[in-house]
Amino acid sequence: VSTVCVPSESIRDRLADLDVEVLVWDWRAEPPPGLDRVELVVPPYMDRPPQARALAALPNLRVVQLLSAGYESWPPVLPPGVLLCNGRGIHGASTAELAVGGLISLTRNLPRLLDQQRQARWVADRTDGLDGKRVLILGVGDIGGRVAAAVTALGATATLVGRTARDGVHALDQVADLLPDHDVVVVALPYSDRTHRLVDAKFLAGMPDGARLVNVARGAIVETDALLAELTSERLSAFLDVTDPEPLPADHPLWSAPNVLITPHIGGGTTGWQRRAEDLVRTQVQRLLAGEGPLNVVNAA
Amino acid sequence: VSTVCVPSESIRDRLADLDVEVLVWDWRAEPPPGLDRVELVVPPYMDRPPQARALAALPNLRVVQLLSAGYESWPPVLPPGVLLCNGRGIHGASTAELAVGGLISLTRNLPRLLDQQRQARWVADRTDGLDGKRVLILGVGDIGGRVAAAVTALGATATLVGRTARDGVHALDQVADLLPDHDVVVVALPYSDRTHRLVDAKFLAGMPDGARLVNVARGAIVETDALLAELTSERLSAFLDVTDPEPLPADHPLWSAPNVLITPHIGGGTTGWQRRAEDLVRTQVQRLLAGEGPLNVVNAA
Repeated sequence: VSTVCVPSESIRDRLADLDVEVLVWDWRAEPPPGLDRVELVVPPYMDRPPQARALAALPNLRVVQLLSAGYESWPPVLPPGVLLCNGRGIHGASTAELAVGGLISLTRNLPRLLDQQRQARWVADRTDGLDGKRVLILGVGDIGGRVAAAVTALGATATLVGRTARDGVHALDQVADLLPDHDVVVVALPYSDRTHRLVDAKFLAGMPDGARLVNVARGAIVETDALLAELTSERLSAFLDVTDPEPLPADHPLWSAPNVLITPHIGGGTTGWQRRAEDLVRTQVQRLLAGEGPLNVVNAA
Repeated sequence: VSTVCVPSESIRDRLADLDVEVLVWDWRAEPPPGLDRVELVVPPYMDRPPQARALAALPNLRVVQLLSAGYESWPPVLPPGVLLCNGRGIHGASTAELAVGGLISLTRNLPRLLDQQRQARWVADRTDGLDGKRVLILGVGDIGGRVAAAVTALGATATLVGRTARDGVHALDQVADLLPDHDVVVVALPYSDRTHRLVDAKFLAGMPDGARLVNVARGAIVETDALLAELTSERLSAFLDVTDPEPLPADHPLWSAPNVLITPHIGGGTTGWQRRAEDLVRTQVQRLLAGEGPLNVVNAA
C-alpha cells in the first residue's frame, strides 16, 4: 500500500511516521487530488449513504476500513474484490458499558431515584437488582463478552448465544428454548438477513413476565410494534440504544411507552473511541506495508 | 446454640428443619417470651438505635449476626464477650451494581439522555466513557472486588487499595500518591475512626480535574462541605448513594449541586437480598450447632 485516505487529521497524525502517503477526506468536502492512488480508505464514522459515489472516486481501492462494528450497508455498494474490514474492538467497551448502565438503570429504577433528587426527596424504596438474575446474551463478539463479564461480576449468571454452538456457547436456533429461563435478554448481534426482526412477537412472548430486553445492536433486529405491545401491557421492560426507525420520530409512541429507556444510538460514541480507532487504522496500515492481510475482514472477497 | 432470635418469619422458615428454637422479634413490637434463652440474635436490617436496650433483654447472648456490611454503631453497645458478625456477602453484588450503574450514569450522562427521551428528542451528542479510564477502588471486600471486575470488563483499569499493602493491593496510607493518576475514585471501605472524613479537602484536591468520586460506603467517609466546593466549582463530579447527614434534609445544597447524582442509600436494598440473608443466617446457625465458630466475625471478642 502506498496511499491511504482517512477522515480526520488526528488519524493522519497517527500515521505520520509510516512510509505511506495519507490523504484526508471526510466525504463531504470536495474530493482531494490523488484519490486515484488510494488503496485503503477509512470512511467517516456513522456516515450515511451514498457511499457508492465516494467509492467510485477510488479506482485503485483494495481495502475499506470501517470505524463501526456494524457493516450491513456496505456489501451492496462495495466494488468486486475489495476487502471490507469492520471496527471490531473500537466500540466494544463503550457499547458494553452502555448496555450494562442501561440495564442497571432499568433494574434499579435510577430515573425515578434521580427525579427524587430533583425534588430533594430521600425515599429509599426497595428495587429489583441483577443479583441472581439469569442474563441471555445474543452475540459473542467483543460487546457480548464484555457484558457477560460485567453482569457476572455483579452477581448475575450469563448464558451466551452465538451463530453456531460451541463450547460454552448455544446456537442462535436454540434461542426459543432458552428464553423462558432468562430474566434479561441482551442483543449484541451483527445485523443481517438472519437477525432482521429476530426479536418478534413470538420471541418476546417466550420471555417470562417481568423480563427485560436490552438492544445495543441494530434497531431492526427487534420488531418495534411487537415490543411496543409488550411494553404497553407492562409485561416486559426494555433499554434501547437503537430503534427502528432511527432516528425515532418525535411523534413515535415508543418515546413515551411505559417501562422503556431510550438513548439515541450512542453506544459507540464516547470521547475515548478516537484513540482506539487510530490504533486500529495504524495497525492495518502497518500490516499492509509488511505485506500481511488486514485484520477484521468481514466479507469473503 | 439452642435458641435464636430472628427479625422475620421468612428467616424463621429457612431454619425450620434445624434442631433449634427460633423466636421472631423485629425489635419494635413487645419482646416475646423466651428472650432469656437466646444465644444468637439477628437484629432487623437498617434498624436505628437504641440497640442497647434490646440487647439488655438477651442475657445469654453469644453472637449478634447483622444483615448489613457496615457495623460501626454496634461495638459501643455490645456486651463484653459477645461476637459481632457482619453481613459480608449479602449486599456486595447489589452495592457494586449500584456503584457501577451510578458511575456509568455519571460518565455517559444518562440523566440528560433520559430527559431527551421525555422530550422525544433524538440528539446523539458524544459523551465520555469508562474505556481507558483509571479507577482507584478503596476497599478490597466483596463490593470493591466486584466493582473492579466490572469496570475492567468495560475497558477501564482498576487499582485496589486496602487497609494494608499486599500482592496487588496498595495500602491506604499511600492513597495520596495514587490520586493524581486516577480518573475515578470508588469508596467501598468500612466506616471507622480511620476512614472518618478520609475524603477531605486535601484528598479531593489530589484528584485530577474532571475526576469522578463514587461513594457507596458511608456518608461520613467524605467531608460533605469539601466535596460540595469541588462540585460547585465544577472541577469534580460525584455519584453518592450515601451522604452526611443522612437522610439528606430537603434544604441541603448537595441536592442541587452541579455534577452530582444522589440515590437514597439503596446500595444493599434490592429485592433479592433476603435470599442471601436467609442463606447466611442458616449457615451461621448450622456452624454453631456443629460446634464451629461463626463466619464474618468483625470484633476481637
